Amino acid sequence: MRQNKLLNIPAIRRMPTYLHKLLKMQAEGKTSVSSTELAEYMKIELIVVRKDISLTGISGQRRVGYDINELIKYIKNYLGWEQTIPAVLIGAGSLGTALLGYNDFELYGFHIEQVFDSSADKIGQCLYGRTVRDIDTMAECFAGNPPEIAVICVSNTAAQSVADRLVELGVKYIWNFANVSLKVPPDVVVQREVIAGGLAMLSVRRKQSRAKKNKTE
Amino acid sequence: MRQNKLLNIPAIRRMPTYLHKLLKMQAEGKTSVSSTELAEYMKIELIVVRKDISLTGISGQRRVGYDINELIKYIKNYLGWEQTIPAVLIGAGSLGTALLGYNDFELYGFHIEQVFDSSADKIGQCLYGRTVRDIDTMAECFAGNPPEIAVICVSNTAAQSVADRLVELGVKYIWNFANVSLKVPPDVVVQREVIAGGLAMLSVRRKQSRAKKNKTE
Repeated sequence: MRQNKLLNIPAIRRMPTYLHKLLKMQAEGKTSVSSTELAEYMKIELIVVRKDISLTGISGQRRVGYDINELIKYIKNYLGWEQTIPAVLIGAGSLGTALLGYNDFELYGFHIEQVFDSSADKIGQCLYGRTVRDIDTMAECFAGNPPEIAVICVSNTAAQSVADRLVELGVKYIWNFANVSLKVPPDVVVQREVIAGGLAMLSVRRKQSRAKKNKTE
Repeated sequence: MRQNKLLNIPAIRRMPTYLHKLLKMQAEGKTSVSSTELAEYMKIELIVVRKDISLTGISGQRRVGYDINELIKYIKNYLGWEQTIPAVLIGAGSLGTALLGYNDFELYGFHIEQVFDSSADKIGQCLYGRTVRDIDTMAECFAGNPPEIAVICVSNTAAQSVADRLVELGVKYIWNFANVSLKVPPDVVVQREVIAGGLAMLSVRRKQSRAKKNKTE
């Protein structure tokens, strides 16, 4: 629960963005990238890029730039994304559907294998190649082999009971998009996703930028 | 572009979560809250909560706890959320629809007034009380009065041209959910939202927790 303290949260949150860019460059046949190039892409300071990348343990190659294949390997290793992570999604509403359509997850080895919902008009639907199943069949579908990660995209009111069921079935890692603080046993890790967090960032930057404009006027 | 450097990003991203909890307590008729209570809810260390809250400029009241109404006022002021922020949404797909359905935005004063899309089967639809309009009518709909914030929820390939049109119409703050690094003039602020950032957080915590389990076994 409390292990967030020592993590460099902004750096970790940026890792998929580096990976996205690097995988794109790799697909374009490029072999090396400079930190300047990455800073330009990420719209952050050069020194921040270098610090972020050093977290992965790759040795610095400042003059020739980083080897793209190497850097991809180090970032994936840092995140534990070398092997495919089997996941399930609970809640096939608009947000759940958006996550299923997020192309990069597969590139990162995050594979949503099964989708569950409790609503009769969702069950049986096919979303991005997955058939939505009845949440009451979850135990049978897991068949004693719970997924590594469960993504909760249900309403705030349903989220705790869904989490309880997941925990009972042996799920240890929950990515929670419902706007509630879930109660789980200490050996279960919950990552709460608050969409409005990005809005808060934009808002503070807006406030700063307006204050600056007023000063110069 | 570079103003992120001095911001306490994790603290800012947590602000809406505090606000969510405080507004709920306020609605329940509560008047004060302790930092211990908030730490429990946020699942972070007490000292982190105190640091977060001190950012808002409120004076500490450690023994009696914080006055909820006061704290709400300070957080809203810190984020520039005292007055309603008029916004528009571009892209009425599943993610855009999910954002329209996010109840807390209205509580935060973030009001999506208009929704635009380019697809014939979206235009004219009513989503959470807003009629989806043709993106080609954006200039007329703004009528020389651009919204404070535009939320981009279109495909990666369409995002840059949408951003160009928004900038041309005078939009200064863009919340970008497309997975691209937008090119905009220096006086325009873009907040890029990378959904996979939360997955990276969960993944690093998973890696740590597995390493710890292996050690104790």
